[in-house]
Amino acid sequence: MIIVPLGVASATPTATRHLSSVAVWRDGSVFLFDCGENAQMRMLQGGLKRSQIDHIFISHFDTDHYSGLIGLLSTLQLQRRDRKITLVGPEGLSEFIEWNFEFSNIDLNYEIEFVELSEDFEEERVVDEEEYYIEARPLNHSKFCIGYRLQEKDRPGKVDAEKAQEQGISEDWQYKDLKAGKDVELEDGTVVKSADIVGHPRPGDSFAYITDTKYCPNSVKLAKNTNVLIHEATFSDSLSDKAEETGHSTAKDAARVANEAKTKLLVITHFSARYTNEYVLLREARDDFFPTWVATELRPIFTDPAHEKGIIQPKVYIKEINQGNKKDDNKRSKKKRSKRTKRSKGKKKRRMRKRKNSPSQKSRRSRSSSSRKSGSSRSRRSNNNNNDNGGGDNSNERKPKQITPRTPFDDFDRF
Amino acid sequence: MIIVPLGVASATPTATRHLSSVAVWRDGSVFLFDCGENAQMRMLQGGLKRSQIDHIFISHFDTDHYSGLIGLLSTLQLQRRDRKITLVGPEGLSEFIEWNFEFSNIDLNYEIEFVELSEDFEEERVVDEEEYYIEARPLNHSKFCIGYRLQEKDRPGKVDAEKAQEQGISEDWQYKDLKAGKDVELEDGTVVKSADIVGHPRPGDSFAYITDTKYCPNSVKLAKNTNVLIHEATFSDSLSDKAEETGHSTAKDAARVANEAKTKLLVITHFSARYTNEYVLLREARDDFFPTWVATELRPIFTDPAHEKGIIQPKVYIKEINQGNKKDDNKRSKKKRSKRTKRSKGKKKRRMRKRKNSPSQKSRRSRSSSSRKSGSSRSRRSNNNNNDNGGGDNSNERKPKQITPRTPFDDFDRF
Repeated sequence: MIIVPLGVASATPTATRHLSSVAVWRDGSVFLFDCGENAQMRMLQGGLKRSQIDHIFISHFDTDHYSGLIGLLSTLQLQRRDRKITLVGPEGLSEFIEWNFEFSNIDLNYEIEFVELSEDFEEERVVDEEEYYIEARPLNHSKFCIGYRLQEKDRPGKVDAEKAQEQGISEDWQYKDLKAGKDVELEDGTVVKSADIVGHPRPGDSFAYITDTKYCPNSVKLAKNTNVLIHEATFSDSLSDKAEETGHSTAKDAARVANEAKTKLLVITHFSARYTNEYVLLREARDDFFPTWVATELRPIFTDPAHEKGIIQPKVYIKEINQGNKKDDNKRSKKKRSKRTKRSKGKKKRRMRKRKNSPSQKSRRSRSSSSRKSGSSRSRRSNNNNNDNGGGDNSNERKPKQITPRTPFDDFDRF
Repeated sequence: MIIVPLGVASATPTATRHLSSVAVWRDGSVFLFDCGENAQMRMLQGGLKRSQIDHIFISHFDTDHYSGLIGLLSTLQLQRRDRKITLVGPEGLSEFIEWNFEFSNIDLNYEIEFVELSEDFEEERVVDEEEYYIEARPLNHSKFCIGYRLQEKDRPGKVDAEKAQEQGISEDWQYKDLKAGKDVELEDGTVVKSADIVGHPRPGDSFAYITDTKYCPNSVKLAKNTNVLIHEATFSDSLSDKAEETGHSTAKDAARVANEAKTKLLVITHFSARYTNEYVLLREARDDFFPTWVATELRPIFTDPAHEKGIIQPKVYIKEINQGNKKDDNKRSKKKRSKRTKRSKGKKKRRMRKRKNSPSQKSRRSRSSSSRKSGSSRSRRSNNNNNDNGGGDNSNERKPKQITPRTPFDDFDRF
């Protein structure tokens, strides 16, 4: 999943911060969490297609969290959308949408499915699909407010095909059974155990969105073991009274939730306009929970750094590129990856060399560094395809055996 | 008046164009014409204070023209506004505001005065103040839509004080009478004629805002002899069928209105997203009406270039600055103008020189050029004060007698 904060302001926009909204890209579909004013334009600016939105989740009815909704839905109408969209939020959401579209005389040409939660709900799976589900729980704000968790379901372990063949597995149904956890009896009576062939189930990715709220147990439940938790941190600790009074969190509250929930990465957002430098809040949160970062508008967060493989060259490579002989090839591999995979390696290498009249090394270097910078904007679109390749088309000798563990934020300079 | 386009897109925002909105700054008060999504943030980015808004005019109820209204009014609420605001628009405006605030549970702490126009109105002065009035007329769009004209009332001519004293005028009431157009009889029986002492009445500034509409006679009436006309130009001439069908104007339609109305400057806006280069539309409009410009977001348009005097140094000065000896003084005069007027010129000059340890000429030059660039953002705020000074505190020998006539767009590089 790729998480793109579209707006990080609280209550009122500043000259540089938009109102609350977070887009989550997952496998070609976009989930929007809250929809502050101008979210539709921020999506465009972040390289996300508005037509890819399938679900919108509204936390509560403070104008800064839903004021972009009518504009966005109108744009989808103008784009002649005909696919259904699902809107999840507190009771009254359908009334709001319907009243406003009637006022503006818009007759929607696509279906909106409303999932409305009443104030007394305790926990609900508001969306449940084959590969993921979304859980909602009430939070503790001055008005009824909902937190969300997007959880991918665990995928079965990988089948070790070589081992399976060795043990005599050949039919499709046998593979299926093994994958499903069943042992398979061969014709000669040997039993092939699923546990021997199939690896551990791969845990699904997870993300929680918690705003606006004071500290509350439901936040911890929603954020439990998530890969990324986006949590509001409206105030610094010195204004904890104000946070308590207005039903908001301080940076320390956010860190507390992250600590108790054992989330892997905490991203704080929803900054009060008084903090022109949001790193004040970051410092406070980091004191209690180190893997914290500030949400930066339009700066994507990868829930799993492995997703970046093949999209953005890890820094470890760069050194090697500049030292070794094969730098040209390695750089070009990024540009032409999709074409490459269809051809055999040897042939392609030669072809690529012919195409350019061997410019000087210096100019090559400068070109490659600029392409590295712009890589991220392409990344979101091509991620899906490249994931399948797993970056495996780099020739083996250039691939470091161990890549230094990185947070998603280590290459700050990629923009 | 200073006109700042906040958004120039039609229907749906692009990555670089916001939805329709134009702010007009006049004598410390801001008039907002339409309020597309994110207008409140664009104001901030343009250096306009949201607290200065006194009037908002909505042309019609297509979402792209009013979707920023609730967000803006909510922000004024958070800013603890207590001054009245006037909202002008089609019938239903008050219902829209009230329903949405009730939905969000906001109890406004400032008064909104609604001026709502019904579909059958023909012409109305919706605001009438001592110094200016605002006229509204219906336009010809697919739904009920209103065009506006902001007109300053003519001011009486300037009194020639020297001539008056020569003829024996000394009392205040005599000046008043002369200004009001009455002749004054002195004690010795001489009659001093008002026409001899008082100049021609000075015509008021004017601005018209016309969107969305096909060509219609009311547009011409609204734009008659205006200094600046902002007119929509959604389509190019090749799509005139589409313009007709959707109730919009082509660039040529805008030029036609400007021609018939004899406006001084036409600014086209409301560009369809299909025109990534809006200069295509500019060329078409200029063919028919030369003084046309494209609305550029956040780029201020001065209805009267004289207003820029003392705010932004005209280019004619710059040459002199670089040649003559008095350059430092001239540059600093801009920075410290307000302080300067209170002191005697000689003293101050020396003081300023002492303060800095005479840096090299080169560094002075570079500093001054950077301050010139940032001048425009300060300009809007300080305009009011500086107008009174009339730039008159520059020593006389440096003031060119005739400044080359300039359009408001001649110093494109001031940003």
